[in-house]
This record gives sequence, C-alpha cells and structure tokens, in this order.
Amino acid sequence: MENILGVEFPQYIRGIGDLKAFAKGLKTSAEKDCKVVESLEKAIALSGLKDGMTISFHHHFRNGDYIVNMVLDTLAKMGFKDLVVAASSLTDCHAPMIEHIKNGLVKRIETSGLRGELANEISSGLMDTPVIFRSHGGRAYAIASGELKIDVAFLGASTCDRAGNANGFNRDGDSSYDCGSLGYAMVDAQYADKTIILTNNIVPYPNTPCPIPEIDVDCIVKVDEIGDPKGIVSGATRFSTNPRELRIAQIVADVMENSGYFEDGFSFQTGTGGASLTVTRFLRDKMIKKNIKADFALGGITGAIVKLHEEGLVKKLLDVQDFDLEAARSVKENPFHCVVSGHHYAGSGSEGSAVNHLDMVVLSALEIDKNFNVNVLTGSDGVIRGAIGGHPDTASGAKMTIVTAPLMRGRIPTILDRVNTIVTPGSTVDVLVTEYGIAVNPIRQDLIEKLLGAGIKLNTIEELQNIAEKIVGKPKSIKYGDKIVGLVYYRDSTVIDVIKQI
Amino acid sequence: MENILGVEFPQYIRGIGDLKAFAKGLKTSAEKDCKVVESLEKAIALSGLKDGMTISFHHHFRNGDYIVNMVLDTLAKMGFKDLVVAASSLTDCHAPMIEHIKNGLVKRIETSGLRGELANEISSGLMDTPVIFRSHGGRAYAIASGELKIDVAFLGASTCDRAGNANGFNRDGDSSYDCGSLGYAMVDAQYADKTIILTNNIVPYPNTPCPIPEIDVDCIVKVDEIGDPKGIVSGATRFSTNPRELRIAQIVADVMENSGYFEDGFSFQTGTGGASLTVTRFLRDKMIKKNIKADFALGGITGAIVKLHEEGLVKKLLDVQDFDLEAARSVKENPFHCVVSGHHYAGSGSEGSAVNHLDMVVLSALEIDKNFNVNVLTGSDGVIRGAIGGHPDTASGAKMTIVTAPLMRGRIPTILDRVNTIVTPGSTVDVLVTEYGIAVNPIRQDLIEKLLGAGIKLNTIEELQNIAEKIVGKPKSIKYGDKIVGLVYYRDSTVIDVIKQI
Repeated sequence: MENILGVEFPQYIRGIGDLKAFAKGLKTSAEKDCKVVESLEKAIALSGLKDGMTISFHHHFRNGDYIVNMVLDTLAKMGFKDLVVAASSLTDCHAPMIEHIKNGLVKRIETSGLRGELANEISSGLMDTPVIFRSHGGRAYAIASGELKIDVAFLGASTCDRAGNANGFNRDGDSSYDCGSLGYAMVDAQYADKTIILTNNIVPYPNTPCPIPEIDVDCIVKVDEIGDPKGIVSGATRFSTNPRELRIAQIVADVMENSGYFEDGFSFQTGTGGASLTVTRFLRDKMIKKNIKADFALGGITGAIVKLHEEGLVKKLLDVQDFDLEAARSVKENPFHCVVSGHHYAGSGSEGSAVNHLDMVVLSALEIDKNFNVNVLTGSDGVIRGAIGGHPDTASGAKMTIVTAPLMRGRIPTILDRVNTIVTPGSTVDVLVTEYGIAVNPIRQDLIEKLLGAGIKLNTIEELQNIAEKIVGKPKSIKYGDKIVGLVYYRDSTVIDVIKQI
Repeated sequence: MENILGVEFPQYIRGIGDLKAFAKGLKTSAEKDCKVVESLEKAIALSGLKDGMTISFHHHFRNGDYIVNMVLDTLAKMGFKDLVVAASSLTDCHAPMIEHIKNGLVKRIETSGLRGELANEISSGLMDTPVIFRSHGGRAYAIASGELKIDVAFLGASTCDRAGNANGFNRDGDSSYDCGSLGYAMVDAQYADKTIILTNNIVPYPNTPCPIPEIDVDCIVKVDEIGDPKGIVSGATRFSTNPRELRIAQIVADVMENSGYFEDGFSFQTGTGGASLTVTRFLRDKMIKKNIKADFALGGITGAIVKLHEEGLVKKLLDVQDFDLEAARSVKENPFHCVVSGHHYAGSGSEGSAVNHLDMVVLSALEIDKNFNVNVLTGSDGVIRGAIGGHPDTASGAKMTIVTAPLMRGRIPTILDRVNTIVTPGSTVDVLVTEYGIAVNPIRQDLIEKLLGAGIKLNTIEELQNIAEKIVGKPKSIKYGDKIVGLVYYRDSTVIDVIKQI
C-alpha cells in the first residue's frame, strides 16, 4: 500500500488491523470556522431529522421559554410527523403543544412535569400514548446510558459563539437573557446525535466558560428572542410572611439542627418556594450562632443560598439550575459557585452523583401517605399539575430527607392513606414536617431517638392524619377512567406509578 | 404486571415498549459515598481488567510522572499479559517500560511521542508490533469516536475528592503537586470503560472546579507520591539569550505582524522552548505599540502567555496543559483562563475544535523538506526522540502556520529533500523561519504578496537549503532496517509515514 506522499506500508498489521492511507492534509480553518446557519429550517434540514425521531429541549428558561413553541411550529410547517418530545420539563407556556399533538406532529412526550392547559388536556386523555415522567437524575442517566436516545437536541442558550460554545450567561457581556446554569442541557448536548443551539446573542469566540463545548454542537441558529427575560429568572426572592410557612420553616430548621447531621462540613439542599427560602434563613441564624459551616449546597440555587455562600457559611455551590437573578449573578462571579450537569447533580447510575453526598434535603409535597410515599405530580383532583424534578433523586441520596407540607390545603387534607400518585417512595423519606407537628418514618429509629433526645416533640404520621381528618374529614377518592395517561418512572426507569385519565 | 407498591400496569405499551416494575427505593448515600479503595491491586481487580485489554495514561506530569511505572510494576506483579498502553505521551522517565515489554506485560503502545532509553530500544526493534504515534487531536478524536477503545484509564490527579471529582490543582489547598490543566486526561475519563484516579491528595467533597467529574470515575487509590514536583512543572520560564533563537524569534514576530492576521481580535498559539517564549515577548511589544489585543491564546500555556493575559493583551486563554508554575497558578486564579479537553483543543472530527479558530501558530521542526513537510519525531540519526503533540492539528487549523528551525544543527542541515519522518504534511505549513531567512510555501501566494508588500525579504526554501548545504554539505541518508517500528498516524488515523528500525 502507498499513500499520496509515496510512503509504502502493509495493508494489514497483526495486532493492529487494517491500515488506511493518508490522502489529504487540508487546512480546516476555513471550512469549520462557523456553524451559524441562516434559519431554523436550514438547521433542521442539516440535522437529518426524520419522522418518528426523538427531539429534546431543556427548561432553563422556565415559564419564559420561547424555544419549544418556536421549534414545534417550524417542524409542523415543514411537515414532520410522529416525533417524540423528550423535554427536561414542560410548563404553562407550552400550551401551544396541544395543537401539535392534535395535528400529529407530537406522538409521545417524556418530561419531568406538566402544568397548565397542556397538563389538563393530557390528564383528560389527549394522547394515545402515555407521557413518561422521569426525575432529573433518572432522565440524565437514561440519556447517558443510551436508554433514552436523542436524535436532535434543540437547546436555547443565552450566549453562544460561532463554533457552538454555549452558556446560560457570559462573564463579560449582555446579561438580559441570562438563565445561569445550563446543567440539564449539558447532558442533551453531550449525548444527542445532533445538537442545534438557538440563541439571540452570538458572542466572540471563545465563549468561556462553556458548559456546552463546541465539540458537542453541530449547528447554531440566531433567533430574535429565546424567551421572555421576566419569565426566565424571577427577580429578587422574598422570604415568606405566611405564618404557616414560617412555622413549618422554623420546625424544619430545628429538626436539621438536632438531627445529628448539623455539624461542621455538612451539606444540604433546600430548593424554592416560600418555606424553603425561609428554612435557609433560619438555618443561617443557627450556623452563625453555633459557628458551623457547610461544605456545600446543591441543586437549584437561589439568592438565599448565594447569600450564605458569599458570607462564607457555605464553602461551595454545585449548581444545576438557577432560580433567580441573584443566583444567576453569582454563578458568573464566584469561583466556587460551580455549574454541574444534570448527570453530575443527580444521575442514578452506579457511578453515583452529587445527591449521594447530601446530608440533608428539604422537599415539598402535594400529598404524602401513611407509608411516607410522596406525590408532587398530580393535584387532589387527580389532574397533572407539577413536576418530579429532583425529588426522588435527592430523597434517595440524602442521609436525611425532610418533606414539608401544610396539614391541609383549603378543605383537603395532605396526609392520605395512599397518595394519588407515588413519585418518591416512602422508603427514602425520613421526616414529615407540618405546621401541626413532626412525624419521623418508623424505619429511622436512630433519628427518632436523636430528635426525642433533643427534646423535640414527635407524632406518628397517623396522629397527624387524624388531626386533619377531625377538622376537614376524610377526602373522597378521585374517580379515574381506565386509560393510562402517564407513567411515572422511578430514577431507575421502573414504573413506580401510573396516572389515569380524569 | 404489578410492582411492589401494588400498582398495576401493562407489561408492554405500544410506542414505548416493555415496562419494568419498581422493586426498591433505597437510600444510596451510604453505599455510594466513597470510591477510595485501599490499594492499587484492589482497584485493578475491581476494574475487571483482563489480558489483552487497553489501558491509558496521561502525560500532564511530564518527566516527573510516577504513575505509569507504578501501575505497570503492579500489573506485572499481578501477572497480566499482552496489554496495550495508550498514553497521551511518554518520555525519558518511562524507561522502566522496556522491562515490561520484554516480560510480555506490554504488547503494543500508542502515544504522541517517545524519548530516552525507551525510544532508543523501540527504534532498535524491541517490539513485535509497531508503535502507533498519534497527534493530541487525533488521539482525542480516536477515543471519542470509539476507534481507540480504552478499557481502563489510570489517571494521576493532583487533587481528588472521595467521589472522584479530580483536578490538576485545587483552588484552596496544597499546591505542591499541581500540574494545572488535565485537558488530555479528560477525554480518557469520559470515554474509558473504567477510570481509576491515583492521587496523593484527597480533598473534601466537592473538589470544584473538576475537569474530571465524579460521574466519569469508578475508583480512587491514594498513593504516597504521584510524581516528582520538580519534573511535573518547571519553575519560572526564562527567555532565550541564544542569539540565533533571538534572531528567529524576531523574524517570526515580524512575519506575524505583517501577515494580515495581526489585527484586533486575533488569536495565536506559540508553545514552549526558548524561541517560542521569545516570540511571545516580541509579539507583546508589537501589541502594545499598535494597541492590538488578542481574543485568545490556545494550547499548552506558559508564564509568558499568562503575562499577556494578565496585562489585558490576551482576553482569554484556552488551556489543555500547563508548562510552568506561572501557568498553573493562573489557571487557578483567572476566570478567563479556561481548561479545555484534548478533544475541545484539537479534536479532528467534523464537529471542529479550537485549533480551527487559530489565526497563527508557531511550531518547531527537527527537519523540514522542500515540500514543507515537517518531522518532529525522529532525529537526524533516524532514532525516535520527540513527540507529535498538537503539531499537525494546529498546522491544519491555523490560518497561518509558521515553522521555526535553525538552518543547521551542528554539522547537520535542517532542510532536506525529504524529511526522514513526515509528521505534518507541507500542505498545511505556510512559512519556514530560519535565522538565515524566510521561505513561504508557494501555495500561499496571498501571503507571499502580503509579506513582500510589507518589505519583508523572502527566499525560496531551495535557496535556504542551498545556503546550508554550502556550509555543511548534503547530509547522508540514514541506513534503516526493514522492520517497521512505528506508524505515524495523521489526525484522521491514516498512515502518513512509517518509522523503520535502525
């Protein structure tokens, strides 16, 4: 065999195999310089997308997202059919997808959650095939392991350079469309066959840091707007003034303090919502008082957590998504506020992930039952109106999982004999905190002893259930149809529950 | 079908497939908390390594590396045979591998380069199967594309936490074993079936930033020493005082200035060695004088480049490896000094990589020929004594590739009719700079016009060759044996040249 430079060599070498001949040494710079194409249609055509394939989206723009609707509208116009939409989550603003289910563009959906009109319609039986609901960690691992194959990922980015280095922020430019961490999208970019970035902000090469590196990007489309900045991140977060939330937050902080896990170098995840932010504030007071510092806080990051970090109370932040402007500012500025992928955050594979290193997590519940199973996905009417998020992932990983809920919502009790939809198994839930009292899962006798020893009053979950039922009575069970409209996957892709038509 | 929570569901759903039943929701924290095992033997046993498999190493500890020898000694004691060693590079300190080739542990080698005794022995025909030499970008892409499958990666890290988040530095701890960027190792960790981290420095979780995240790591071994700190990075870099190097550097800087690529927002890679560092200094003077700033510098980073960055002359650094203490310090401290993987740096796939965005690169040569083909791998005696590195990658990517070489080394001319080993094809080399003059590749008429227009004197490469041959005569050709001891792969895994036994 001879190559174009006249070098002779054997066609085959034992221990190596067949050899190939050098045929061209070209300058690559000109041809590879720029991946920006002039339209979304062109990007889709280049991607090789075909009917029946799987496309993906992230939810880092939250309720301000324009990407999903824009892409589906374009795909519908181009005549595509029978696509699977694998979104990291879907929300109110995605109601236009209803039309695309009806017109045959969207055949099947995978998501962490659904809300608003789209959720109502799906609960009413809109789709032929059930929606698969996955946790953030379960989705990341399903993608990484090849179980969930993404053909084309459509990923919105607040900033991107001509080669595809993309981020949810930019350390030296316009920040009006910042979303902060792009943690969930990193997994899609890494494993999708083709990745298309949609951005309104093409910045000079190289756009660093870049959670999505150019080597994972095939094509870039410049669009007028990626979303509504007001919906992408919320403004300043406010602490609760609701007395019930304040009471729950105070109890949670007391439980954390006396659990045995509150010691120098501890770690925690709180999350969003009034009660969670208030927990963070109370926890801060206790940390200062006892001179205890945390090694890290994890998860969706809020301004409340950033404050603790910037005060030196929490050494490092591991950030898969940002919930407010303060968090998005911090991830730009603070060298120990570090972006992690959805896989690194909560991946359910045997390689482990950050959730496994949590000492304490504080989670919410729509419903919880006597076996401590938690529902965060369907309302008391059985209609889908929530998202799994990282709930089962963090519950499984944390040494102590605290679930908070008001004992009643209006005339409806929160503690049931059996939740309508099991999202997180009670075997991974340790403590329920309500404004009426605390119940610890009986499998955690160690924790019961710790808390009783610290003088904290405990109830059984049945006692708390009885209090509520004495006030508002036992709830009527929901009348479901026979059709399965949703499959709830646990983080290992097993079916933990099904959601039936209303 | 029914799961352990009593939920009934069909075994199969059309459009989805077979379903699996939820069977356990366990706390994962306890079992997944720590990947540190008590010995290298244990880690190897857990990895499932078998005779004939491929193991990998990185060269970020350069000539201070203890990892390769330590691992091979242990594998030999454990009785392994016929392994393929796929190292990102090998150097003088790896001479003990000779014994492991003789005793049957190492059957085949892939590397960017070889030096010292190991190189001499291999040039003399030590191995039955030729060594495959790959460029950094070619190796990264071969791994990413699956062509080069790594079974077990043994990666030394200056810092690692209990879960495997590993780095070549740590922003808040001991830095005596720092190597800076772990760019080449990132690719191994991501794609190897199993990754074992060897470290002398286990730091608190989470070790952020972490170019190697815990999700890519299976096992961690604490060792006494990962290397000799003096060999891992060199101390302060010094500029050349060699008049010939100074002259070459001055000419290179003049060519860069007048090439048409020296304008605001340009990009460049220089590299190591006296002449390169001096080029950087002269370039700095020109940037200040003309008020021109670079968007980025790429590659192996030196203190000379860091100086330009910290002065605001170079906006961003993309760093695949660090050559000195100053560079290792900067990557810890500077938010725009960004670690990139070997794939992101120079990957040869169609997705492109950073080298494609280079305006100018300055490279060295052991030999260059009339067709501008370059040899950086074998000496004038035909013995292996160098490394491909990113030479063909950057030459291919950069808009202007400048190769520097003294016209003669001792009594041996550098310009030949045909280099002994073609590493970088002349079709990607634009300019040769020697202390006697400049030759531009005739395929770059545009560049010839630019430089002549700026009043720069040019020679043909034949003219330069004649100058040398008038002084030292035409070199005798080397007498090789028939046996092929090395295959030189171009970045697309084609054979560009072969190295024969001496």
